[in-house]
Formats: sequence, C-alpha cells, structure tokens
Amino acid sequence: MNQFTKPAVILFDVNETLLDMTPVKRKVNSILDSRSGFRIWFGLLLQYSLVENCTNQYHDFATIGNAALDLAAVALDEEVGEHEKKAALSLMGHLKPYKDVKPGLQLLKQQGLRLATLTNSPQQTLMTQLSNSALTSYFEANLSVDAVRKFKPAVEPYQHAAAVLGVAPSEILMVAAHGWDIAGAAAAGMQTAFIRRKGQAPYTLAPKPDYSCRHIKDLANTLSVLQPGNPEAVSAR
Amino acid sequence: MNQFTKPAVILFDVNETLLDMTPVKRKVNSILDSRSGFRIWFGLLLQYSLVENCTNQYHDFATIGNAALDLAAVALDEEVGEHEKKAALSLMGHLKPYKDVKPGLQLLKQQGLRLATLTNSPQQTLMTQLSNSALTSYFEANLSVDAVRKFKPAVEPYQHAAAVLGVAPSEILMVAAHGWDIAGAAAAGMQTAFIRRKGQAPYTLAPKPDYSCRHIKDLANTLSVLQPGNPEAVSAR
Repeated sequence: MNQFTKPAVILFDVNETLLDMTPVKRKVNSILDSRSGFRIWFGLLLQYSLVENCTNQYHDFATIGNAALDLAAVALDEEVGEHEKKAALSLMGHLKPYKDVKPGLQLLKQQGLRLATLTNSPQQTLMTQLSNSALTSYFEANLSVDAVRKFKPAVEPYQHAAAVLGVAPSEILMVAAHGWDIAGAAAAGMQTAFIRRKGQAPYTLAPKPDYSCRHIKDLANTLSVLQPGNPEAVSAR
Repeated sequence: MNQFTKPAVILFDVNETLLDMTPVKRKVNSILDSRSGFRIWFGLLLQYSLVENCTNQYHDFATIGNAALDLAAVALDEEVGEHEKKAALSLMGHLKPYKDVKPGLQLLKQQGLRLATLTNSPQQTLMTQLSNSALTSYFEANLSVDAVRKFKPAVEPYQHAAAVLGVAPSEILMVAAHGWDIAGAAAAGMQTAFIRRKGQAPYTLAPKPDYSCRHIKDLANTLSVLQPGNPEAVSAR
C-alpha cells in the first residue's frame, strides 16, 4: 500500500461524510418515536444492502431504505404510513454539507488533486444531492454503486471507480466517515482516510486507516505537506 | 423450489429463533444506557459480519460482537469497560429456549424429521448454548459458519450444511426469526419458515418465506399434515 504517497484522486463517500444527515435523523426519530430510530433504520439499511450483496440480488439503496423503514417500525412496535415514509426518505435529496466541506474541497483542488465521489445511493439521488448542496462543481466524476450492482464495501464499486478514473487503486485516497467503507477501500488496495464525524469510529478488526482526520479541511492540510509520488512518512494520527 | 413438500431435515437458526436473548438485551441496554442499546449493537454485529464477508476476512462472531460493542458505545456516546463488555457477551452462552421450543422440537421428532442447527456463532459457543439450554439431545448435527468462514446469509454456510447432512438443499427447511437468514436459505435453494418473534419481520424484497409461523409448535403442527415427498398445497400463512 502506498501509505503517505500523495494520491492522484481523492474519492469521497457522500452521506455522513460530506452531507449532514441531521434533518433525516430528526424526521426518522420522529416518525419512529425513538431517539434511536434513525440509527436503527440506517443500520438496517446498511445491513440489508449487504444481505443483497450476499444473496446475489440488487435493489437500489432507496428501495432498500424504504423496506428497512418497515423493519425498523416492526422492531420499535410503531406504525409508519406510506406518506410518512416518503416524506422522510425524500429529505435524503436535500442535505447540506458540513461546514468544513466546501473550504476543504477548495484547498484540495488548489493542490491540483482530482476529486470524485462514490456512494451507495442511486445515481439520480447522488446528482440531486450534489446539486442541492452546491457541490457539483468540485467533482470530475460522481459514481454510484448502481453501475456494478454491488454495495460498498464489496470490492467491485471501488474497482469500478479506479477503472473509470483511469488510475490504480493505490493512487486513490478513499475518504469516509464509516469504518466499513474504509475497510472495503483498503481491501481493494486504496489509501484510506477516516473522518471522525460524531458517533462514528473505525472498525478495529480491519486495517487501520492511513489517515484519521477531524474533518475535510484537516485532511486537506495534512495532504498539503506531501509531495506528489514521494513516500514521505507523515503521520496524521 | 419444493414448496409444501415435506422436508427431510429441519435446520434451525439458534439466537432469537430457539434461544431468548432477553438477558443479553437487558444487560447491553444497561451498559449502553439506552433502551435501544441491544438493537443498535446486534445490528452492528450483523452488519459487520457481512462487512467481513464482503472484504474477504474472517473473525468469529464473538470477536466481531466485542468490536461492535465498541462501535455501539461510540454511537451512543457511552464508555464501556472491558469487564462490562465481557460480562455482557458471556451471557450469550446461558440463554434459555422460548417456551414453545422443546414441545415443538419434540413434535417434529415424533414425525420422524431429522433436526439440526446452523448458526453464525462460533462452534464452541453453540455447543455451550445447547448444553446450557438442555437442547443438545434434539439435534443430530450442530453447525457453525466457522467451518466455512463466511457468515449467513452468504450461500456457503447453507451449502455446507446440506453437504454435511447429505441431502439436497431443497430437502432442507431452514427455520429462522430473521428475514436475512430466510433470504439466504432461499437463495441457496432451501425451503424456508419464518418464526414471528416479537420485533422481527421478513425482508419484503426477498422471496416470501414458504411458511410463516408464530412459534416452533405452530410449525410442527403445520408440517404434521404433509406427507413425505408429497407436494401437497397446504398454506400455513
């Protein structure tokens, strides 16, 4: 692994890494009448996306999100109507970036780095999210697992991203606020940066992330001291 | 799929299907200081077992359970010490069967059916669980995913079970209280029975279970009217 070699492309996860899901969290907690409603729902959504990976079927992330809301409602012994479900899920398209994101992306671009996104969300949701959060212009490519019909952290979406971007996986730095995403990128041979958003932690049974940063600006500052292709040993931990 | 053909072997999931996890639930809720602590932890455990499937690594379910307890603690902003974690996880070996389980297993044996278990837990935990709950004598084989180092619902553990039991997957009825387990068994070509334990629901994006029963006695009564190898159309729904 080219740890501490300056990457050619920075590849970002989107939900909870760039975009703040707080409005969805509040809404889901409200309709499930539980302070943990969002966590239970989003956990089921992630779990069942991998159930689909493991049973060789594919529904997009929005469709699984809808089914997972039913599972969460049963778990919490609540009734949630179709209208409420739709209202909660539609908020996914209208999230705002965390305040460190735009300045951080700007700093990364100033270093001449190529920027792209890779998400479990459907392609259309991704484009809506980037447009509504005014992030579109920062990225040269925006990729959804839709293209390969396997959810992260399976190896296929990461390999697909490397192929589309025309670089080796080792030249890509995957940036995410989820331990599972970091684990998948590392398994695919990418460099990894974990963003320490509130409530998130790396998965201790997977390889340690190459970088661990408070936010995107912090990551940009860390990378700014690396020379292109120079395996300088700079620790960001 | 041999729906409504009498199976040769009934294969049981263990945790939450045969054994009541209430003591673990209470303890985990207590150490995480949240009424949803258990659900968040067990959800993370299941999710990260599939992260391991998808990234081609394997730690046993107990080891992942320990790491998932750390992730749940971060999610809920709680501190959980090693001693507390160990105390919670050790309860997994001392669960009691739901009250329908022994009479149900007895009825199934009286029909001449072969009974076995297949669990994500490590082999040693499984044997301890069955011994402490006085269920060992009901089963001719007790199988852990340890043998194939892939967690359910990947196809490998189900195929392994069929091979060990010496029957085709279609001659096995997989019994579980989890939608994801039913989905995996169906993908492997097994018949499926969903047990409607509290808080559990089938996964609506996977094939519908062949049987949906309140409990194991209910399942035994449903199967009692089927003739061996006779594809009689009896609906248990």
